[in-house]
Formats: sequence, C-alpha cells, structure tokens
Amino acid sequence: MDIRTQVIDIAKNGRIAANILARTSSEVKDRALLEMAEKLIEREAYLIEENEKDLAYAREKDLSGAMIDRLTLSASTIGGIAEGLEEIAALPDPVGKVTSMWKRPNGLLVGRMRIPLGVIGIIYESRPNVTVDAAALCMKSGNAVIMRGGSEAIHSNLAIAGILQEVLRTVGIPEAAIQIIPTTDRQAVNEMLSCEEHIDLIIPRGGEELIRAVVKQSKIPVLKHYKGVCHIFVDASADPDMATGICMNAKTQRPGVCNAMETLLVHKDIAAQFLPVMAEEFKKAGVTMKGCGKTRAILPGIEEATEDDWYEEYLDLILAIRVVDDIDEAIAHIEKYGSLHTESILTESYKNSQRFLNEVNSSTVMVNASTRFSDGFELGLGAEIGISTTKLHAFGPMGLEELTTTKFIIHGDGQLRT
Amino acid sequence: MDIRTQVIDIAKNGRIAANILARTSSEVKDRALLEMAEKLIEREAYLIEENEKDLAYAREKDLSGAMIDRLTLSASTIGGIAEGLEEIAALPDPVGKVTSMWKRPNGLLVGRMRIPLGVIGIIYESRPNVTVDAAALCMKSGNAVIMRGGSEAIHSNLAIAGILQEVLRTVGIPEAAIQIIPTTDRQAVNEMLSCEEHIDLIIPRGGEELIRAVVKQSKIPVLKHYKGVCHIFVDASADPDMATGICMNAKTQRPGVCNAMETLLVHKDIAAQFLPVMAEEFKKAGVTMKGCGKTRAILPGIEEATEDDWYEEYLDLILAIRVVDDIDEAIAHIEKYGSLHTESILTESYKNSQRFLNEVNSSTVMVNASTRFSDGFELGLGAEIGISTTKLHAFGPMGLEELTTTKFIIHGDGQLRT
Repeated sequence: MDIRTQVIDIAKNGRIAANILARTSSEVKDRALLEMAEKLIEREAYLIEENEKDLAYAREKDLSGAMIDRLTLSASTIGGIAEGLEEIAALPDPVGKVTSMWKRPNGLLVGRMRIPLGVIGIIYESRPNVTVDAAALCMKSGNAVIMRGGSEAIHSNLAIAGILQEVLRTVGIPEAAIQIIPTTDRQAVNEMLSCEEHIDLIIPRGGEELIRAVVKQSKIPVLKHYKGVCHIFVDASADPDMATGICMNAKTQRPGVCNAMETLLVHKDIAAQFLPVMAEEFKKAGVTMKGCGKTRAILPGIEEATEDDWYEEYLDLILAIRVVDDIDEAIAHIEKYGSLHTESILTESYKNSQRFLNEVNSSTVMVNASTRFSDGFELGLGAEIGISTTKLHAFGPMGLEELTTTKFIIHGDGQLRT
Repeated sequence: MDIRTQVIDIAKNGRIAANILARTSSEVKDRALLEMAEKLIEREAYLIEENEKDLAYAREKDLSGAMIDRLTLSASTIGGIAEGLEEIAALPDPVGKVTSMWKRPNGLLVGRMRIPLGVIGIIYESRPNVTVDAAALCMKSGNAVIMRGGSEAIHSNLAIAGILQEVLRTVGIPEAAIQIIPTTDRQAVNEMLSCEEHIDLIIPRGGEELIRAVVKQSKIPVLKHYKGVCHIFVDASADPDMATGICMNAKTQRPGVCNAMETLLVHKDIAAQFLPVMAEEFKKAGVTMKGCGKTRAILPGIEEATEDDWYEEYLDLILAIRVVDDIDEAIAHIEKYGSLHTESILTESYKNSQRFLNEVNSSTVMVNASTRFSDGFELGLGAEIGISTTKLHAFGPMGLEELTTTKFIIHGDGQLRT
C-alpha cells in the first residue's frame, strides 16, 4: 500500500472511532486510562527493550545528550507516565457538560453542551512520554488521535501505542481511537496535513522550525505557538525584593522552556537602584545579560543588545534588558517585539496593574508573578495539551476543555417561528 | 498603486485601528453606533442616489428580481438598518468581561478575560444592509473590519462606509476601523485572503460557491457553513398536530434560508397515519415532495428521491422524505447526509429526546421545535454575524461573543514556581 493510501485509511478509521468515542461514557474512558497505566508498568521490560533500539540508533547518529535523555524510557519515567494517566483519569470529563442554559421569551430553553472536536493530529519530536500524554488527553475529551512522532522514537512509540490499543480493545473502544503513523517517511506528514476531510485539528509540539513547517503545509487548522518571548516589566513602584525573586525565577528556574523570561523591561526611576542588585544575582546564576544604552550606563560591563535581541527567544541563560520611560513605553515594546505568549508587570501601583492587565493582549498577562506559571497545570486547567498564541478557538495554555467545542441544544414544546 | 499594495495597506491600517479599538470604551463605541444610525437617516437622499447607480447597472445586467430587491435601498430599508444599529448599541459589550476566575492553592488568582480577535475580513454578496450590520458587530466587539461586497453594490457600499467613517472620526476612533475594499477587481479578494499577518479571521456570507472559493484561496482561518441540510425526525410518539405545525413552519415559513428543513425523516410506526395528513398540508402550500420507497407506498403520487436528494439543500419548496425503522436509523441518516447545521426531533419519548440531543453532533440540535429557530437572534445571542458548521472556535450561530477570544489574567503577590 502506498503511503498516501495508508495515511488516508488511518484518518478514515480515526473518524469512525471518533464518532463512537464521542458517545462513550466517562466511566469507560477512565477505566481505559487506569488500565493503560497498569499495563504500561506491567510491560516495562518490553518497553525498555524497544526503547533500547531507538537509543542505539540515537547513539549511532551521535545525538546530543539532552536529546538522548528526553528519549530514554526507564522504570522511573514509565512510572511517571503511569501516574500522569491516573491524574488524567481523575479529571472531570468535559464532554456533555452544559456550560450555560437560558430561556427565551417564547419558552424555548437554549443551552450549550460541550462535545469533542473529532479527530486530532499531533505532530511532535522524540519524546515517548508525549505519546501517552497526548493520547490520554484526546481520549478523555472524546477525540480520536493520530500521532506522528520523531523518527528517533519510532520503536518506543509503536510499542507504547500497541499497549494502549490492547487496552482499548478490552474496554470496547475501537483501537483506531489512538493511532500512530507507523512509518518514518516524511511524505506521511504531508499526507496527514492534507486529510482535511478526516482530521479536524493539528497540534504540533516541538521547536519553531517544526511548527513553521507544519503550518506552511497544513490544510487543517493548526493550534500552535512559534515561540515565547516573555517579558517582565519592573515598574517604578515594584517591591525590589519581590522583583529580584520573580525575575530570578522567571529567567533561571528552567531557562529552556517557552514561558521563561527573555526580556526584562525596567522603569527608569527604579533602574539605578534595582539593576545592580539584580545583575549581581544573575551573575551568580550564570546569566549573560545584554542591555540597551541606558542599561549599560548602569551596568557598564555587559554587552550591547542589538535590535535582533528584542525578538530573540534565547531558551538559555541569556537575557535582554531595556530601561523604559514609563508603562506606555513598556506596553509599546511588548506590542512590537512580543510573541503574544506571557507578560508580567511587577508593581505596587493599582492603576498600572489594571492598565497592564487590560491593555496587553498577550495570551497570559500577570501582575506580581513569575512568567513560569503560564502552564496548563499551574493555571489549574488540570492538564496541558499545548499553548496557543493564535486567537482563534483557544488562546494561551490549552487543557481538556480546549479539545472540545459546544453545540446548541434546544428544548421546545411546539414553538413555531413567525 | 497596484492592487496588492493597496490591499496590504488597507490590512495594515486595519491592524493599527484594531489595536486602538481594542482599548476603546463601550461608551465611545455605542455613541458611534447611535450616531451612525442618525447619520444614515440624515443622508437618506444621498444613499438612495448612490444606490440608484448600482440599480441601473443591475437592470442593465438583467439581474433577477430577487437580487434587485435585496440590493435596493429605500427610506424603509434605511430606517430598518438604523434600527439595527440602535439594537446593537443596546447589547452588552463582550470585551473586558471576565468569564470566570478561580484561586490556585498558592494564592494566584487566575481568570479569563474576553478580548477582540483583531481584524476581521467579511466577504459577501450584494446586500448593502450587510455592510452596516457586519461593520457594527465587529466594531461593538472591538474588532476592525475589512469588507469586500459584491461588485453590484459597490456604489451603495462605498457611500455607506463613507458615512460610517465620518462618524468614527468625530468620536475619535480611527476610520480604518471600518474599511471597504474600494475596487471590484477580483484580484483584491485573493490579496485580502493572503494577508494572514494582518487579518485574523475571514467570514464569508453568501452562497456555497462563494464560500468554497474563499476557503480554497484563504491563508487566513475561515468561519463558515457551506450549506444547511436540516432534518426533522418525526418519532413514533410525536404529537401529530404539533408535528404537522412544526414541519410546515420549518419547510415553508422561509424556504430559501439555510435553517429551513430539507429532509423529513418519519418513524415507520407513525408514517401511515402522519404522512397523508402532512402531505395534504404541504400540497396546499405548494411543496413538491420526493420520497423513499416506503414513503411512496403511502404517498403514491410523489416522485422518487434519489441518493443525491438526501444531500440536497433545495432552498426552495421541495422536500425529501424518508421512512426510517427507528431513532438509530434516523441518527445514522443525519450522520451520513447531514451538514452539521440543525436537526430537530419531534417526540414525546423522554429517552429518545435525550438520545437525540446527546448523540446528534450537529451545531444546533432541538426537541419539539422548528429548525427555523437556528439563528443568533432567535437563540438569544442578540445578533448574528454568521453560522459556523466548523467545530473550531465557534459551532452554530455566532454572535458578539464569537467575535472575541479570552486571555488569561493572573493576580499574584510574589509567587515563584518551584
């Protein structure tokens, strides 16, 4: 069978499974999730064996230590994956929830009920835990999922999917509810992105390059963020100790992720007092700073930030710093250079906190908190399938609800339109 | 200036206006809407004069009476348009509404706030009232709008937009908040659909052909429905009088619109009793019926429905009728032939009403009501900018809220992520 036919078959089977899964009770879905957790642990030796094939290939290809680390399955990572499944099983099922209901003057009772989106395509890089996590979130929200992982993880992913499908069969859900594209041929991705009849949504997870390639190719709507150029604005009235703590946390707690701070904006009235103390802390933590002219007048030792730096997502212990005249200049900077991801103002001014929350239209806007909280779990969504910086459908961290839509339900007793 | 540059300029100006409009108060937006209503009535003679140029061209091109009718502006239609503006002014502003807010264990207060989408493109056919209605709904929801109407209405549309922009200037909103593509050249549509950097959403309004052309061309997300093949299922337990009334209303009250019934499904146990009475009513109303074999055994005079008929949106006094064995067959028919628009079950069975509401995943699902109620005004949304049968972002009739998205807002007091 050629790849095109193979992918179209997978997509069509996904659609059939999605129609059944949409009507499957929460009880059955949760039972499947819990049994998957058990089965993955039970089959630990087999998973590690299959994973070893991927690791051997990765070592042969001389992949970086960080990549090999993310690819590796161990008793401990499998235990973590199983725990994740139990947590998803414990979340409330969004499907069937009536989010609001109102009565019309003619007596019609009109409501909105959550339903699954249908078939979701996930395109991601070589992390086998994503296979389980994405499959579980899609299934819990009543969607069939078609996954295409990195070629480096193909053995691990097929082994995992095989176990998940085994469980689906035992609880009576069609196994096409969770499918992996079984080939590493790149053509399969293009075919998948052309199945707009059978796949409703694509969620890419990975670096900016992967995501841009997916968006360029896809005929199916894509929910994604390219990058997170997150800003913190230290206002004139900021509490200096709180500001130092939050900026350190936002830059250094995990610099390689999209919600880490990349640019620090400092009000001119607090800069001379705040920046030297802050810079001392950053130096201790190994952060390389780059600054505007005014910043360098206060911190003469640091490199000059170029125009490109303001657009940069370093994903590293590097930070661009700019001194601004006021909140207007801070907001204008974010509007020009920002990525609509996450921005935080540190201030004791009520007026400025309100202005920042109202006027900055990034997907997550904060007062006196670390940008690192921009995350589905931390915000209380219970889970995270991704983050969207596109305003359509979902904006910001996406949990189970964002994998659903609502239909109108109407109870009448014979109403006619006149 | 070439058309490409002209359209890109329009789109860029739209983006700048959108950023300002997003921060404009409800009071200013509502004042603008009320002044637009006044100004349109004040300039009635001028509008009728400009409209006359379009009508002369339409008569010359020998357009149908129905099309000329929809194109015509009179004192009465202008009065209706002005009233529409007053109604939109009176609606609550969705922007800035915090739809929910919750506290995290670490004390972070997390909420979701409605914000505008940005710049919306409307592509529509020759109805000048749409120009005002779409412009008003986009502005009320804080969005800039770029409109491309039918070439038959270009003089009317430019005259209307000129008046609306005059009002924008007086209240201090940039006039680029409401723009019309000033050329009838088709290339302008293609350029508009390629402006994915500056336009966030396209809403086409018109026939299936127009919409398919827009979707095919667009690099921007499109909210649309191709057609409405709406079904009514008369269950065995339906109240026969109620069923006759609702079916007549759904088929004949306004047959040319997308929420009219196109296919009638009748349970076999009620068919012999119900269909002859119903057919008598339909005949009086001039409805042409086409039926399956079982239907024709009861109504021998009618034409046979072919496979194609089940997919057909007649938009006319024509109806396809099928007798089904039970609710499962009815739901399966809708799943196969439906358009995800609107379906209604007529039943006195509690169980079947629940099954239909839960299992039919069309955008609007009803019990004991006419499909004609599937409309933003009738469902209580206050307005309607269009109907979506695509599940992403909005599904079903779309009002002001569907022209917004939500951002996360977070109030902290120094929280760090650990």
